[in-house]
Amino acid sequence: MALIFFHYKFSLFSLLSLLFITFTSSHIIPRFPSPLIHPEQQIINSGSLQNGLYKTKFFTQRLDHFNYNPQSYQTFQQRYLINDTYWGGAKKKAPIFVYTGNEGHIDWFTQNTGFMFEKAPYFNALLVFIEHRFYGKSIPFGGNKKVAYANSTTLGYLSSTQALADYATLIIDLKKNLSATHSPVVVFGGSYGGMLAAWFRIKYPHVAIGALSSSAPILQFTDLVSPYVFDNIVTQDFKSESENCYKVIKGSWKLIEEISQKHGGLELLRKTFRICNNYMEVDALEGWLQTAWVYTAMTDYPTPTNFLNPLPAYPVKKMCEAIDSSKREKDRLGKLYEAANIYYNYSGNAKCFNLNDHSDPHGLAGWQWQACTEMVMPMASNKESIFTRYEWSFEDFSASCENEYKILPRPNWITSEFGGHDIEAVLKRSSGNIIFFNGLRDPWSGGGVLKNITKSIVAIVAKEGAHHVDLRYSTKEDPKWLKDIRKQEVEIIESWIKQYYQDIAKI
Amino acid sequence: MALIFFHYKFSLFSLLSLLFITFTSSHIIPRFPSPLIHPEQQIINSGSLQNGLYKTKFFTQRLDHFNYNPQSYQTFQQRYLINDTYWGGAKKKAPIFVYTGNEGHIDWFTQNTGFMFEKAPYFNALLVFIEHRFYGKSIPFGGNKKVAYANSTTLGYLSSTQALADYATLIIDLKKNLSATHSPVVVFGGSYGGMLAAWFRIKYPHVAIGALSSSAPILQFTDLVSPYVFDNIVTQDFKSESENCYKVIKGSWKLIEEISQKHGGLELLRKTFRICNNYMEVDALEGWLQTAWVYTAMTDYPTPTNFLNPLPAYPVKKMCEAIDSSKREKDRLGKLYEAANIYYNYSGNAKCFNLNDHSDPHGLAGWQWQACTEMVMPMASNKESIFTRYEWSFEDFSASCENEYKILPRPNWITSEFGGHDIEAVLKRSSGNIIFFNGLRDPWSGGGVLKNITKSIVAIVAKEGAHHVDLRYSTKEDPKWLKDIRKQEVEIIESWIKQYYQDIAKI
Repeated sequence: MALIFFHYKFSLFSLLSLLFITFTSSHIIPRFPSPLIHPEQQIINSGSLQNGLYKTKFFTQRLDHFNYNPQSYQTFQQRYLINDTYWGGAKKKAPIFVYTGNEGHIDWFTQNTGFMFEKAPYFNALLVFIEHRFYGKSIPFGGNKKVAYANSTTLGYLSSTQALADYATLIIDLKKNLSATHSPVVVFGGSYGGMLAAWFRIKYPHVAIGALSSSAPILQFTDLVSPYVFDNIVTQDFKSESENCYKVIKGSWKLIEEISQKHGGLELLRKTFRICNNYMEVDALEGWLQTAWVYTAMTDYPTPTNFLNPLPAYPVKKMCEAIDSSKREKDRLGKLYEAANIYYNYSGNAKCFNLNDHSDPHGLAGWQWQACTEMVMPMASNKESIFTRYEWSFEDFSASCENEYKILPRPNWITSEFGGHDIEAVLKRSSGNIIFFNGLRDPWSGGGVLKNITKSIVAIVAKEGAHHVDLRYSTKEDPKWLKDIRKQEVEIIESWIKQYYQDIAKI
Repeated sequence: MALIFFHYKFSLFSLLSLLFITFTSSHIIPRFPSPLIHPEQQIINSGSLQNGLYKTKFFTQRLDHFNYNPQSYQTFQQRYLINDTYWGGAKKKAPIFVYTGNEGHIDWFTQNTGFMFEKAPYFNALLVFIEHRFYGKSIPFGGNKKVAYANSTTLGYLSSTQALADYATLIIDLKKNLSATHSPVVVFGGSYGGMLAAWFRIKYPHVAIGALSSSAPILQFTDLVSPYVFDNIVTQDFKSESENCYKVIKGSWKLIEEISQKHGGLELLRKTFRICNNYMEVDALEGWLQTAWVYTAMTDYPTPTNFLNPLPAYPVKKMCEAIDSSKREKDRLGKLYEAANIYYNYSGNAKCFNLNDHSDPHGLAGWQWQACTEMVMPMASNKESIFTRYEWSFEDFSASCENEYKILPRPNWITSEFGGHDIEAVLKRSSGNIIFFNGLRDPWSGGGVLKNITKSIVAIVAKEGAHHVDLRYSTKEDPKWLKDIRKQEVEIIESWIKQYYQDIAKI
């Protein structure tokens, strides 16, 4: 099968573009979904801030923290968003809540991390959301994205260790400027941002007293968890709704391939799935469907969520209901379309779907580079998978990266730098104050920390939860388990802060 | 006073060159002394290894761990020394003791860390001594020191964070090759190597289960301890022997200046102190004397130690005895000479002393660069000081560095990256298994961790101890307190290893 590298897009309404990296036409490697709710809509929903959610500021950041070449001394403007509405102030040593930005525009993540806004009044917390270098408006090389993303000479400075050092430097400087050196900092993050939050607490314990690391697959790396685990969870999500649903989707790939090879088959598929494009490759259609199943599994939230196109509560169930509504063989394509339509067109406004949309409204393109350098997360599909069987090949992956960027991935770097092996034995003796939240409906939970390690390194596991659901704005419809989890998180964070005040009082 | 930057040398017999960085002619900033015993002599003394102390190996190391520019992918050969004589082997998960190399040749440090050799049989430990990048034979850019040290473009890769990542990478690879992934690693280091050992445990807890950090002034940085503390301890060392001794040395600077300004005065000084050079600047003589006082304070060991020129036990006491042997004003210069002679010429073989020896037999020159980039350790002398009064000026320091290397120091980087503020409150909740040893006779102890932080982060403080005396080979004359300290260190390390076996048994 031909390698299609980084040129596969799945977006609708230009919203959810670039959420996948594809390596083979029949296998997609999911990116972090990041909060999928449309920001504007979310702000209105939250209703909690009438006079603007935050102020935008910039910090002069060093390009390279770890070297001293002339180039290292270059700087760039790093964006951060700040809300001091509820802050108790430096004199009271009131806490500072920092969101460690992910692989996209920080305003988008900020607007989708309602938990911090909702809890700020209770904690009298200052809120700070720091944008990750090379994303949004935090672009090195004069803010010129074309230059910054040109090739490995400039893109080389996009790395997780540099990002963490950025956060440390910015937080320390900000606290100094606010005369708030003794205000405790708690870091928050979801998905890749959650990985950064946990690693930040582990690597910079002198800067953050604790971390809420939500849906952070810090174990989704070489030799840590099975490469099948992500796929297995997607599979399980659909299987748990109905065996038939699972079988129909699992069988669809062969069915679609067979139809596509018949005279007029592609045209039939194109019409059935309402694809706008005049010409369509069958691989693109399959990718489009995979996106729908995978993303719905990740965002299988218990309440209706507002995408640009809204999703119902428990969307996987809804998809399976559509598929199960007729068990007749000849209805299959139509039922698959109906299910995909729940993800792509719940509002019913879309006339047709464009498979070639290459826009990237949330500025997520840098993840491709990160995946090709250090974020090497092996993924595969076994014979039980709802998708077609696929074995992970580091060699193929590496060759694709070399072809694209002329650099080689470092599959062992993340575990060398941040650990992962025997994580319980390690963190038990060397860290504290971390919450690892995972929702087991979320396929990324397969790479998450799911067991308590110590009294203060706690795994909160929500059987019915999806991707960083805890960090979302609360809604009236939230189930009890979700309310309880947020309450538990607040209590734990509160205990860290109390403990910190006691600890520094003794100095 | 004129700035004399990096051009002041104090060596005798080319052994102890370059141990100081000077900024003003009358003020010297001490470098780490590193073990001062002559290696060959030490090996003979130890007598514990008949068939060679170690094997020399090389590891292909990445030039830049944190970036992904084409340059980052360059590699160099990193030297490490290994002794498997006593190792219990991978199957038994026998421990690995790693020395985190300092700013010089690793063989020199290895041969002076007898503690590890002497305890290896008890622990069945594999011994590994890793050379710090840019020192010894671990020179990037094809091993070409001229190129590597040419300017900041190449020297830029000499940094503590890169060195720590080198150690992590090498250890992980070595364990993999030995199939010993579950052998616990304990890191050891003295002086700068002790700082690296402590930071390694803090930053790479997944690689090292514990650290013995000996005489590591991790708090000797901006805004952490008083800049006077180093000087105060040197002063106190001499004062504790006799008030007269202190006063004579303290008064000597003015005395020497006055004599030097008289007709024939310089010649008198040159002859009195037996300086070989035909022409001598008074600043050079003062530096030569300061070196003697500072280094003797640092190495004020309780037993005779073998330099190329041997030192007696308690050499500060011996110096003061020489000075106190006559209280007549006119004998002063002669008595100062006798005291200095204890440091420079205890064997009595030297005919005269060369103030212009620029040799660097232990390859310590890179520290100049490290001090000018991140190892900014403010030092000053107050009016009580045994030396002349001197105020720390970051501006002057920075200007000197800019002049020398065309780069600016980063005075806050070390505390941003590794912490230091409120270290007790921080490490209490975020680390474990560290021994901080300090001898209070050692002026570097002023920047050390001197209080227990938790049950497993322990400060061992020897009132009568000097610079990393615990790591030295034992001798028959060792006092009880030194034997007790080494015993305590062994017991603590043993408890870490036991605990580790229990922890991984549960996985």
